[in-house]
Amino acid sequence: MEVWRKFIVLGILSQIVGILAVILMGVWMGYYLGGFGWGYKNKLKFNYHPLLVTVGLIFIYGDAILVYRIFRKEKKLYIKILHMVLQLAAFTITVIGVKAVFSTHSDEDAANLYSIHGWLGILTIILFGLQFVMGFIFYLLPAMSEPLKAWYMSSHRYWGVAIFVMAITTALVGTMEEVGFKIRDYSSRPAQAYVVNFMAMSLVVFGWLVTYLVTKPEYKRDDNAYTSTLEEAR
Amino acid sequence: MEVWRKFIVLGILSQIVGILAVILMGVWMGYYLGGFGWGYKNKLKFNYHPLLVTVGLIFIYGDAILVYRIFRKEKKLYIKILHMVLQLAAFTITVIGVKAVFSTHSDEDAANLYSIHGWLGILTIILFGLQFVMGFIFYLLPAMSEPLKAWYMSSHRYWGVAIFVMAITTALVGTMEEVGFKIRDYSSRPAQAYVVNFMAMSLVVFGWLVTYLVTKPEYKRDDNAYTSTLEEAR
Repeated sequence: MEVWRKFIVLGILSQIVGILAVILMGVWMGYYLGGFGWGYKNKLKFNYHPLLVTVGLIFIYGDAILVYRIFRKEKKLYIKILHMVLQLAAFTITVIGVKAVFSTHSDEDAANLYSIHGWLGILTIILFGLQFVMGFIFYLLPAMSEPLKAWYMSSHRYWGVAIFVMAITTALVGTMEEVGFKIRDYSSRPAQAYVVNFMAMSLVVFGWLVTYLVTKPEYKRDDNAYTSTLEEAR
Repeated sequence: MEVWRKFIVLGILSQIVGILAVILMGVWMGYYLGGFGWGYKNKLKFNYHPLLVTVGLIFIYGDAILVYRIFRKEKKLYIKILHMVLQLAAFTITVIGVKAVFSTHSDEDAANLYSIHGWLGILTIILFGLQFVMGFIFYLLPAMSEPLKAWYMSSHRYWGVAIFVMAITTALVGTMEEVGFKIRDYSSRPAQAYVVNFMAMSLVVFGWLVTYLVTKPEYKRDDNAYTSTLEEAR
């Protein structure tokens, strides 16, 4: 069971760096950038955006794609429902996080969606929404035949990982954008710069660990009906 | 051969968007940011950095990982040598691109490697260097046994894709950083902003196409000795 010991070690490590990324983002927003607030023209409203999207679209999303490989023996339907519930939580938290930034821009009569971060972000969320709906239709409604489910599986997997990676990329681009607005002395490496850079590195390492664990063939579920069907169909 | 028609269409599309990204980066640096130059205290030296790294670490690197799936019938050794030559070209061009930015910082007594872009970039290049050396030792020197080659193959593949994605992510973060320095009226969407944003989107689409083409199981080489060995070893 050498292979499973490695899976467990990397899985635990993924949770540690994922939580570290969320904590460092919380410290950046909560301490260095002034904390959190809500309501019309509240300048602290924006700070919910990076934190909530990191929690939803990165940390919870990452764990939602890990569940198939963590719960290997449990009934597939239960894991599908758990996957859907986690993705629904991820989506809801993300939408609130996006609301925070649109609302801030609206308060300040500022432009929306002009930057690379904005374009990447809205694209990622649209793809996430489509992926959620497609996943629900193909794998939770009883309507689809097994060959159709098998046919769609490699796309669902590819985009599942691609959207996760895009979420991390978008977060890193957004962090760089926010640094440009807020940290004037970034190049002289104040403490805040280390908090931000280590947060960014934690996101990268979380990305490595999750994508490694969900793509490595050795870690596949034994009883994955769709995978077997897919493999046969090739 | 429906599956191969799709491969060819997506392959051609990948080259179009890859070249588009390089052209748009060239337009940004060559036209909007003043052109190119070299030598002590030449302010146009920096502009080589984004262009050369995009050409080397993204476009040529992407094509270098595509070669195994494009040349399906040719002798494996020839493709391995082509893969190595392309990666060596990618690495050389990237190193000149990195030299451009270190040299610019040195001229201006500015700090190196303080930002997220710098950290991500140096990490990506170190990983690329390691991946190159490991690939050469395992797959071009005659020293390694087939089981060892097979054992290392899934890691070489995972990191090959991961480093490529990190290169694109680093480019997007660096683009956001450069926008912060150079485009004061970014939020009012000048023409330059569209050049930059479409360049960024081209990089994303190039990333999608290359990662899709190199990971989709249907597009695997028929005669891949290492893959078969690996599959048997599982």
